[in-house]
Amino acid sequence: MAIHGTEGAGMTTVGILGGGQLARMMALAGAPLGLRFLVLDHVPDACAGQCAPMLLGDYSDPAALAQFAERIDVATFDFENVPAEAAQWLTGRVPVFPNPRALATAQDRLAEKTLFRDLGIPVPPFAAVETHAQLCEAVAAIGTPCILKTRRLGYDGKGQFRLKTPADIDAAWAALGPQAASVGLILEGFVAFQRELSVVAVRGRDGEFRAWPLTENWHVDGVLSASLAPAPVDEALRDGALAHARKLAEALDYVGVFALELFCRDGELLANEMAPRVHNSGHWTIEGSETSQFENHLRAVLGLPLGATRPIGHACMLNWIGDLPDATAVLREAGGHWHDYGKSPRPGRKVGHATLRADSRQALADALRRVGEALGRQAQVAPVIARLG
Amino acid sequence: MAIHGTEGAGMTTVGILGGGQLARMMALAGAPLGLRFLVLDHVPDACAGQCAPMLLGDYSDPAALAQFAERIDVATFDFENVPAEAAQWLTGRVPVFPNPRALATAQDRLAEKTLFRDLGIPVPPFAAVETHAQLCEAVAAIGTPCILKTRRLGYDGKGQFRLKTPADIDAAWAALGPQAASVGLILEGFVAFQRELSVVAVRGRDGEFRAWPLTENWHVDGVLSASLAPAPVDEALRDGALAHARKLAEALDYVGVFALELFCRDGELLANEMAPRVHNSGHWTIEGSETSQFENHLRAVLGLPLGATRPIGHACMLNWIGDLPDATAVLREAGGHWHDYGKSPRPGRKVGHATLRADSRQALADALRRVGEALGRQAQVAPVIARLG
Repeated sequence: MAIHGTEGAGMTTVGILGGGQLARMMALAGAPLGLRFLVLDHVPDACAGQCAPMLLGDYSDPAALAQFAERIDVATFDFENVPAEAAQWLTGRVPVFPNPRALATAQDRLAEKTLFRDLGIPVPPFAAVETHAQLCEAVAAIGTPCILKTRRLGYDGKGQFRLKTPADIDAAWAALGPQAASVGLILEGFVAFQRELSVVAVRGRDGEFRAWPLTENWHVDGVLSASLAPAPVDEALRDGALAHARKLAEALDYVGVFALELFCRDGELLANEMAPRVHNSGHWTIEGSETSQFENHLRAVLGLPLGATRPIGHACMLNWIGDLPDATAVLREAGGHWHDYGKSPRPGRKVGHATLRADSRQALADALRRVGEALGRQAQVAPVIARLG
Repeated sequence: MAIHGTEGAGMTTVGILGGGQLARMMALAGAPLGLRFLVLDHVPDACAGQCAPMLLGDYSDPAALAQFAERIDVATFDFENVPAEAAQWLTGRVPVFPNPRALATAQDRLAEKTLFRDLGIPVPPFAAVETHAQLCEAVAAIGTPCILKTRRLGYDGKGQFRLKTPADIDAAWAALGPQAASVGLILEGFVAFQRELSVVAVRGRDGEFRAWPLTENWHVDGVLSASLAPAPVDEALRDGALAHARKLAEALDYVGVFALELFCRDGELLANEMAPRVHNSGHWTIEGSETSQFENHLRAVLGLPLGATRPIGHACMLNWIGDLPDATAVLREAGGHWHDYGKSPRPGRKVGHATLRADSRQALADALRRVGEALGRQAQVAPVIARLG
């Protein structure tokens, strides 16, 4: 695919299903490539609409999809829970990346975990659950603690119930059993991990694979709170993680950026889940890497050469959940970068992030300490500082 | 001024007079700060309109200006030739940065050069020219070669006539004399310089001054062709250039980013002109510096803390004039970044640029050599490679 100016091909319009902050940052990264965008979202004030033209409509409405398809040259996603049929329908009209099979696999925790296992990527024990009786069997087989999750439509810790003992089975079933028929359930062994890592990687239309340095992540209440990159890990662990990600991308014939979330327990990696899109744990790449995940996703989707994923110093991303703190403390830092998604505040909502970049781990830790103190967010920065120390 | 999320002040809308690539890149840089934009331009397809809402109207139309003022919180420029009265009128309604006096001074080569001289910043000899007789006197006083220029509305080498000998006086007057009454004329001594340098700097509302590393520039037919930063210069030269820029900014009570173009002749600096806005010779700051000129201009205009202007490695910007070359060779480079302004091709038009970034001068020279060869633009990269060598 040619971009504007290349081979006189005229404008290329990228359609994005979903108009949240990922689509927004994609549009901002794609404008310098001369790309035009069209965002499809059912929410009139979706924040990507501030940065790109938006079509208001539902992903599952054939008329909206048809109108969308007509105005774009290629389609991609900011949201993995687009109905698989919608993605499939679109592939008959325009190129769609990642492909619907990859999307469908990542949408379903059972399909995803099964694929991990088939590829030899270690996973915690898991079992499909359709009935109360199956839940009992699965708990007996896997043991406690364990977590009952919806197979589909869960994100940021939603749609999950943790079982500490078998006595929690009824409560778990009461909480999630009603969804067994609609979105399916899966029971997973609880992993007492020491660290959470993610591989953010990109694969091109020609099969070229590139990964950014490993990212270490900290979650609070199931939502990403902070990311550090490059994660301080030994080479063997890093190489293992990257090998898992590459194997997965190749198995799915994946095109674009994706994230593979991993637990690290006693030096051993266990795959948690993959996100078939640019990912919150890759936001640091905007300033902390030669090419951002957003630009590389677009390069991949358009068949352009992939950009370098090398880090530029050390970076830490802090997520702003619910509302934005005052920007001043971040803007005062020599490596402080602010990202306001243009959303109105709402409890639990991702409304922005900051990235601190520095040339050394020590300088990054110092910046985090200052920002944490200025914002009264010592708890958010503490685990990152501890890791850097 | 608070940005969105800070002190719950709601959205801030920045009005930009002029909707070219500078406004476009400003809007892209400002979105992460949570800023909204409104661009005023009289050209319906002004390229900033692809990235920000646009108001179609003339800068000198009071009705358009009034509508513009009503919808914005602060105004700035992507274009220095906005009528001074329009800028002055706006200041009665909204904060305007840079201030109209700075704008008016930079619009007029005579006022600008006079200010340089008054501040002790060396300048080539110059004289105001209103009549043919004055032109003769000025040529006699200044000597040849010299250049007759319009005082106002000239840019990229337009509105200039070079006199090699006094015999060229009549031709110069025939070319530019008719504009003497409308935009004024100035005769300047020709400087046989060895190097062209620019200081791109920013001054905040609180008077804080920061400059990026000195940039070295190469022009072709009066239009910027390539910029290299940090320019390989000795400290004394750099400090002298920065001191000139700071003195100028303070004298004008300047707020925002500006560029001071300098000639270097036998190790001595001579001021050529200032641009009261973000500048083509500062485009490399997007990837080559911690904070881009576009973001820092906005930070200054909004009264936010200024971002660090430290370089990240070595960067070279190549301008694309007339039409865009194929992007592939640039995108293949590990430090290759592409900027397509979304304009249609037209001879002499600035339609995009590329920035190559590298960790060493040698690596940058190698990248430039590869790109120059791939695009058949050896002549464009040759002087930069020679300087890096």
